[in-house]
Parts: sequence; C-alpha cells; structure tokens
Amino acid sequence: MPRLLVRSFAVSIDGFGAGPRQDLQNPLGVRGPELMEWLFPTRTFHAVHGQAGGETGRDDAMAQLGFAGVGAWIIGRNMFGPVRGPWPDEAWKGWWGDEPPYHVPVFVLTHHARAPLPMRGGTTFHFVTDGIESALTQAKAAAGGKDVRLGGGVATVRQYLRAGLIDELHLAMRPVLLGEGENLFAGIDWRALGYAAAEHVMGERAMHVLVRRRA
Amino acid sequence: MPRLLVRSFAVSIDGFGAGPRQDLQNPLGVRGPELMEWLFPTRTFHAVHGQAGGETGRDDAMAQLGFAGVGAWIIGRNMFGPVRGPWPDEAWKGWWGDEPPYHVPVFVLTHHARAPLPMRGGTTFHFVTDGIESALTQAKAAAGGKDVRLGGGVATVRQYLRAGLIDELHLAMRPVLLGEGENLFAGIDWRALGYAAAEHVMGERAMHVLVRRRA
Repeated sequence: MPRLLVRSFAVSIDGFGAGPRQDLQNPLGVRGPELMEWLFPTRTFHAVHGQAGGETGRDDAMAQLGFAGVGAWIIGRNMFGPVRGPWPDEAWKGWWGDEPPYHVPVFVLTHHARAPLPMRGGTTFHFVTDGIESALTQAKAAAGGKDVRLGGGVATVRQYLRAGLIDELHLAMRPVLLGEGENLFAGIDWRALGYAAAEHVMGERAMHVLVRRRA
Repeated sequence: MPRLLVRSFAVSIDGFGAGPRQDLQNPLGVRGPELMEWLFPTRTFHAVHGQAGGETGRDDAMAQLGFAGVGAWIIGRNMFGPVRGPWPDEAWKGWWGDEPPYHVPVFVLTHHARAPLPMRGGTTFHFVTDGIESALTQAKAAAGGKDVRLGGGVATVRQYLRAGLIDELHLAMRPVLLGEGENLFAGIDWRALGYAAAEHVMGERAMHVLVRRRA
C-alpha cells in the first residue's frame, strides 16, 4: 500500500512551519528561509537543484529520505505559487522554473480548475478541485506503487492530519523563533488523533523527529 | 547585575512545557515526565538528588548550567505544590521532602500569604503575594550578587516573558508530542518581545536552545 508521507518539513521551536505574509519575494513567508537553513547546505539539496557539492551528514541523510520511493506529490495552492483566486491566465508555472525538482506527477489542491501542466523532466502539475481525499486517491493511482509525498504548506498538512490520512511525518525542528507565521500545531491535539513521536535523529542544524500513527 | 534565567526548561515539539491535569500523582501533569527524560539520566540530576552515577555528555553539560551561579529561585505556586486557594495549614512543604534541592532562598508566587518556611540544607521558601516584579526584586536582593533562576511552571515563565523581565532561557526541546497541556508559546510573539534563538546544542535526548533578548 502506498503511504502518504510528509518529509523534510521544517518547524521553528515556536511551532511555525512558514513565516507570515507569503508573496513573490517571500515564497516561504517573511523569515521563512530560517526554517530551511538545515536543508540548503546538504548534498541532497544541491543535487536536486542540479548543483555539485554540499555537506553530507545526518541532516543530509534525512533530506535524502524525502526523495526515496516517492511516486507522486500533493501540494497546496500556496506552495505552487502566490496567485490567489481564479487563474488569470496560464502564465504562472510554479516557483521552480522550466524543470521543477519533482520529476513525477504533482497534484495541486485548488478551488479553481486548470488544465494539466506538463513541465520538463517528468513533472506534470495536475490541478485538483474536488478535495483532499480525491487528490490522495489520484496521487496514489499515479504513484505506480510508490509512496505519495505531501509537500505542504502548513494548512495543507493540517487538513490531511486532521483527516487522519498521513502515515508518517518527518519534522525538522529548527532552533529558531519566528514569532509569527503559520503554526503547525496550534489547536490540534496530535496524540488524540493517534500520532506519536516514534524516532529522532539529532542533525547538525535540526532535530529530526519521525511522527507516526500509533498502531 | 544579577540576571533572571530560565534553565533546563523542557518543551515538547508541540509546545507544551507541562502535561495537563497536574495533581499529587502527576506533579508535571499527565505524561509530563516525558519532557524530563533528557534530565533524569544525567550525572547532574543524580548529584542534585544525592545519588551517585549518571551519564555525562551534552545533556549533562546543559543540566549543569542550571546550577551555576544561581543565588535564588522564583517559582509559581503550582510548582511548589498541588494545593490551590488559601493554605489550609502548614502541612504542605513542597514536592521535595525535608531537604529540597535548591539550597538557596526560593520565592514562591502566590495570592495567599504564609510565613517563610526554612528547610534543611539552606533552602528557605518565601511566599510573595504582591506580584512578579516584587518577587524579582526580593530574589535579586537575596541572591548575593549571583543570578536568579526562574523555575516555572509554564504560566509563571509566560508572565515574566511578557513583562520582558527574562534575560536568557535555556529550552530543552524534546522529541515528544504531548497533544495537550500547558503551552509555552501559544499567543505570544517572542520575536516582537525582543527574543531570539542565540545558540543551540544537540544533546543526546533534547535539542538545547539558548534564547536571549536581542541587543
């Protein structure tokens, strides 16, 4: 059975998975990049973006986990881009240029229909307007027996979590305080939903925690 | 100038500094001990409680920091005990037996006056009824030029934090999910209050973060 996995999802100690006021200049929200400073130096991140070099180590090993056996992705509309409301045209094609780093089908949750968007390198963006369960069904069917990675953002992860649909989350707890932004934990009792911290790895720049549903 | 320091303050990844439903059987709240499982194995914790042995390592070094140069403590009423409302008598003398592990004056915040309570080993509990600033003034005066440690619990730390009175906090982020309890971060914008994560140490069982007021 393909699983739904959250991977390399960074969170500040005050619980924010993204900064506030996301826009074209701040795709991760204001100060959001502080969350990702464990990932940027890794060899895995370099390789995904076609660059040589980068650090190996525990953070890198955890980053690698995010690309192992992933046959499809699901992402929220805001993770696809800053455009809100109906698509004015087909101009916006994601944050990632002509060849996005997915290389598999990516299902984008949105309220506004749009034709599938094939990109270079094997990524095709599919726009799903009939809800998170439909997106999951479509993604699992497209994943070819592999797992589905839920990319985010925070609101999307919270929706799937509350619906009990996530099998495992790798949270990268970062030693930073954002103060404001999108909170991953607020108002959700994770234990009551059946989740528990199962394993942890102390990385160079983040504490990695694997959260799973209890049997 | 003596500083006001929070030390060895454990927090779950979902932001809880204590479990729910504190009572005589659960001084740290239900599942609260999961927060402290980084501290219990350390040599420092053993020594403070008169026991030999215990692990040395990064967690232990951070635990030691909590007892260096501390001349007085401030604690909230709930950290002193489970008694609520007016003191029915003088029977409750804290969770720690005849010889508490403080060995210095300890100022207990309460709405209900009570005579000072000297214990074996140098600890005297002083009950402060006129607020957090008064307790800080008294504690600094009693600390003999050393620092004042703010022991907790969560509500007490939040009060001092909001008042901008804390100089530094050592938070021990634990890879556990409590789901419910007393949240350290909820509703407080730490950055707006002037605090930032200044340093971190990856311990064996916790990610230690030193939070300081920005200059």
